[in-house]
Amino acid sequence: MSDFPSNWGRWGDSDQRGAVNLITDEVRARGVAEARIGLTVSIARATTPFPLTGGPMAPTTAATTAVQTAMLFTGFGAPAMAEVMIVTTHHPEVTHLDGLGHWAEGGRVYPGVDVADSSGPTGVRHGAADVYGDGILTRGVLLDLAPGRRLSPGHPVTGADLDTAAARAGVRVLPGDALVVRGGWDRVVDGDQPLPGMTLDAVRWMHEHGIAVYAGDIGDARPPLPGETPGALHRFALGRLAIPLIDAADPENLAAVCERLERWTFQFVVAAPRIVGTTGLPVNPLAVF
Amino acid sequence: MSDFPSNWGRWGDSDQRGAVNLITDEVRARGVAEARIGLTVSIARATTPFPLTGGPMAPTTAATTAVQTAMLFTGFGAPAMAEVMIVTTHHPEVTHLDGLGHWAEGGRVYPGVDVADSSGPTGVRHGAADVYGDGILTRGVLLDLAPGRRLSPGHPVTGADLDTAAARAGVRVLPGDALVVRGGWDRVVDGDQPLPGMTLDAVRWMHEHGIAVYAGDIGDARPPLPGETPGALHRFALGRLAIPLIDAADPENLAAVCERLERWTFQFVVAAPRIVGTTGLPVNPLAVF
Amino acid sequence: MSDFPSNWGRWGDSDQRGAVNLITDEVRARGVAEARIGLTVSIARATTPFPLTGGPMAPTTAATTAVQTAMLFTGFGAPAMAEVMIVTTHHPEVTHLDGLGHWAEGGRVYPGVDVADSSGPTGVRHGAADVYGDGILTRGVLLDLAPGRRLSPGHPVTGADLDTAAARAGVRVLPGDALVVRGGWDRVVDGDQPLPGMTLDAVRWMHEHGIAVYAGDIGDARPPLPGETPGALHRFALGRLAIPLIDAADPENLAAVCERLERWTFQFVVAAPRIVGTTGLPVNPLAVF
Amino acid sequence: MSDFPSNWGRWGDSDQRGAVNLITDEVRARGVAEARIGLTVSIARATTPFPLTGGPMAPTTAATTAVQTAMLFTGFGAPAMAEVMIVTTHHPEVTHLDGLGHWAEGGRVYPGVDVADSSGPTGVRHGAADVYGDGILTRGVLLDLAPGRRLSPGHPVTGADLDTAAARAGVRVLPGDALVVRGGWDRVVDGDQPLPGMTLDAVRWMHEHGIAVYAGDIGDARPPLPGETPGALHRFALGRLAIPLIDAADPENLAAVCERLERWTFQFVVAAPRIVGTTGLPVNPLAVF
Repeated sequence: MSDFPSNWGRWGDSDQRGAVNLITDEVRARGVAEARIGLTVSIARATTPFPLTGGPMAPTTAATTAVQTAMLFTGFGAPAMAEVMIVTTHHPEVTHLDGLGHWAEGGRVYPGVDVADSSGPTGVRHGAADVYGDGILTRGVLLDLAPGRRLSPGHPVTGADLDTAAARAGVRVLPGDALVVRGGWDRVVDGDQPLPGMTLDAVRWMHEHGIAVYAGDIGDARPPLPGETPGALHRFALGRLAIPLIDAADPENLAAVCERLERWTFQFVVAAPRIVGTTGLPVNPLAVF
Repeated sequence: MSDFPSNWGRWGDSDQRGAVNLITDEVRARGVAEARIGLTVSIARATTPFPLTGGPMAPTTAATTAVQTAMLFTGFGAPAMAEVMIVTTHHPEVTHLDGLGHWAEGGRVYPGVDVADSSGPTGVRHGAADVYGDGILTRGVLLDLAPGRRLSPGHPVTGADLDTAAARAGVRVLPGDALVVRGGWDRVVDGDQPLPGMTLDAVRWMHEHGIAVYAGDIGDARPPLPGETPGALHRFALGRLAIPLIDAADPENLAAVCERLERWTFQFVVAAPRIVGTTGLPVNPLAVF
Repeated sequence: MSDFPSNWGRWGDSDQRGAVNLITDEVRARGVAEARIGLTVSIARATTPFPLTGGPMAPTTAATTAVQTAMLFTGFGAPAMAEVMIVTTHHPEVTHLDGLGHWAEGGRVYPGVDVADSSGPTGVRHGAADVYGDGILTRGVLLDLAPGRRLSPGHPVTGADLDTAAARAGVRVLPGDALVVRGGWDRVVDGDQPLPGMTLDAVRWMHEHGIAVYAGDIGDARPPLPGETPGALHRFALGRLAIPLIDAADPENLAAVCERLERWTFQFVVAAPRIVGTTGLPVNPLAVF
Repeated sequence: MSDFPSNWGRWGDSDQRGAVNLITDEVRARGVAEARIGLTVSIARATTPFPLTGGPMAPTTAATTAVQTAMLFTGFGAPAMAEVMIVTTHHPEVTHLDGLGHWAEGGRVYPGVDVADSSGPTGVRHGAADVYGDGILTRGVLLDLAPGRRLSPGHPVTGADLDTAAARAGVRVLPGDALVVRGGWDRVVDGDQPLPGMTLDAVRWMHEHGIAVYAGDIGDARPPLPGETPGALHRFALGRLAIPLIDAADPENLAAVCERLERWTFQFVVAAPRIVGTTGLPVNPLAVF
């Protein structure tokens, strides 16, 4: 894979934003121009937390979830209700942004920082998710790989698949775009079947088209795709191309709206809570029409 | 206070969105029209988590924070770094959205639901923060109460203060707008001094101007303002008018950008992680120019 | 039930130790005299924590548990492994001590303290589990209600049942003793069947025999026993008689050892971690022979 | 240090109990014989948890602690109060048992297991703290290094110091004993001064005397002792001799009782909550007289 393209060094030796650098002023202006009526559609999965309480106060058996909450006792007669929340961000039940510091290839994080320097017991020092603290705004393009249905189990998504979807929608993907992919799969609900996944060919396509950020319900296949590089999306799109990934996204509603409006481009905007120094954060990316 | 205006029942007996209903299609279109160049500015406070680890692995004394993280052991030689995160949402260190179910006046949550029905040990059933799961987008207006400085300690913010700031900026606040207020205070950093706060008069002003959502660095005063109704913002804006509050916002950078661009209106957009059934969620509201 | 005996006031108006006061110097000496060979047997249930990590790092579906752990990243090449642990104490999967502040009858905690005074959002001020910080040591007696088998589903345990078991073992229960009861049930494993439980009659028996502390695999029945007072053990033994309960104990190994040694009395000792101000704590009570 | 004695292999290649194997039947009987009146004294530090709640519900600044609790909302009118508890076990504020799997020297855990085999993201598979699930009972000996006062800052504790204390108390330390050491220091309260610590010479003394388990307020020095092997107690007593350590113990009350009774030996008993698969657990060791 040593001939696979790399963005390491492309924006300097200490860059932390990666492919988001492709969102220039011109790209940003193209993004906001897509928003006309102000309709907003979430591209996030709804996550139902599981209560931390047990015993007689809650069921004792349940599926685990990415988020757990405990409703707090705020005092007798207190007017406010509140809770504490425990989040395991990199979980398929919650839509989350993978920061560049989440992934180390050969012990190094984009653009070449030793993982021992980028991450420590108390947090992330290089490539944390909060480097996008002012939000990411650009044009978004939905490529629906299986309109009205879902991809076959274990389908290897290729660049040709992405081209086909773009042609079907009549859109041209441009440098700096946010790529939103729908395959009709949910890693949690469908987790007992072979999950489709991105091939290295698809990641190369992302590079050639200058994708700045990725969001989709298709990630890396499980089990690995026969004859394909395993973990292509995380290893090459996130690790080598420094494209931040919005993992476990849910573009189902977005696809319905695109169909209805007959538009597959929109203002894409995402802003994670400004929590400093983490490898990832839960997010709710929006498509604005 | 029984003559204070109320929105209970205004949008039906089972409504969960409150004043966000004021954001009509027309209002939304006005909101997106504000975005021209695509510049995004966060209105959130950066929150530095404190590590959960202790002993020789981390300092044993520190200020508490709203967010704690523990970097996880993902296995020897694993390429991915990850953490678990504990969030106490209603904390002055983290910008968060107060859902309508956060507040009960007289044992009732907007628009009259018994708090025993809206909240239980396992979560919120009415007025949870996730009812805004598709995001909130409208026009935002920054009213800077103390440009280039901060309000006096314990200053009672009135409707006249808001009018003065609007006149200074040359803006007219319209129904459905997001009101962003800057007073130059930070509840954490400045917590040892008397905090300014909203008066009932200011909340009445919000009602008269049809504010749909509030974000600011001014909340309820601490200690209570002499001669004023304590907790006016939470009790009346959130509780009675059902205006969702974005608490502990940080409009400092936004004020600088507004000054530079000489514009105090913008596309306001906020989308909390889609975590279901909580009284509040950490958010990162954006101003888009 | 107003004629049911009560220990409220028996040891003063501000007492926090309840029936543990029955363990006098003489009783304690009787307890240590039981230990001769130093064989120790745990009366606690082994609790397997569930990992907090998710995604590719751990299974995404599993039964919940009382304890969750996350193995921490302690640095590359660090010699120490460590974890953070989340405990929901009052859970049937973990043997735990119910402090007297865990239970309020009619809004009052033994011996008559308003629950608003005994408990607040930041912890327990009266009747916390740590009042037994120096440990509880006394003579323990195992009453095995169903040697070599288990009680019938939904069996109502009465004083006569306890008498029968004592006669079978040839022991006389004395004031200040720790009562250990085995019924052969596990609330987690057998939770889909009607659980046997203590009747008010059995609780009265405990009072008449001067039980100082209770540990057992029989608690309150679920569903409630027909024709019996629901929650008799928690409401009357814990709430009114102030007998601290060791909930979700597992006397299975102990019963086997008692059979083998033909002895049903032993030194009983329990010492919870000295964590201050909680309603309960996980414990590992020991029988010492 | 390659000539330093080692217990690796002494009890087989798959042993998980280490020096606790020194507690034979005879040693155990000697232990229980020490208990005569049944007086129990805790050797644990009292740990005050810090509340997880924030904002108006709790102070926003405080020292961190090993344990955090959140009082739960159990429903309106519910008779039971309960909390969730977050524990970072290896913290100087909480007395805890270091299991043998806590420490890896040269990537190996006693008695030679690769740390990648002993520990994984979901827990400890070899040398977990729960291997002592039935408790540890033996004779305990208190060696008070500085009766009525505390050791000098940065004092290097040697075998000669231990001999002096034993001679002063008139006790002979025997194989299988639990060694309890008092130096009068508290790592949390006194953490701003140079902490005394065990030298390699003292660890060798422990080996020569056949110590089975260690508890004390003296651990490894901080900063490291000049001219001494750093981390001698953890690296050599725990790592090589497989003596489980009870870290952050508090023998202050015990010393007072020993003085009063003029006895420096006692029944030592410790039983951690039976939580499976962790590197350590909070404990409350007892001295029984």
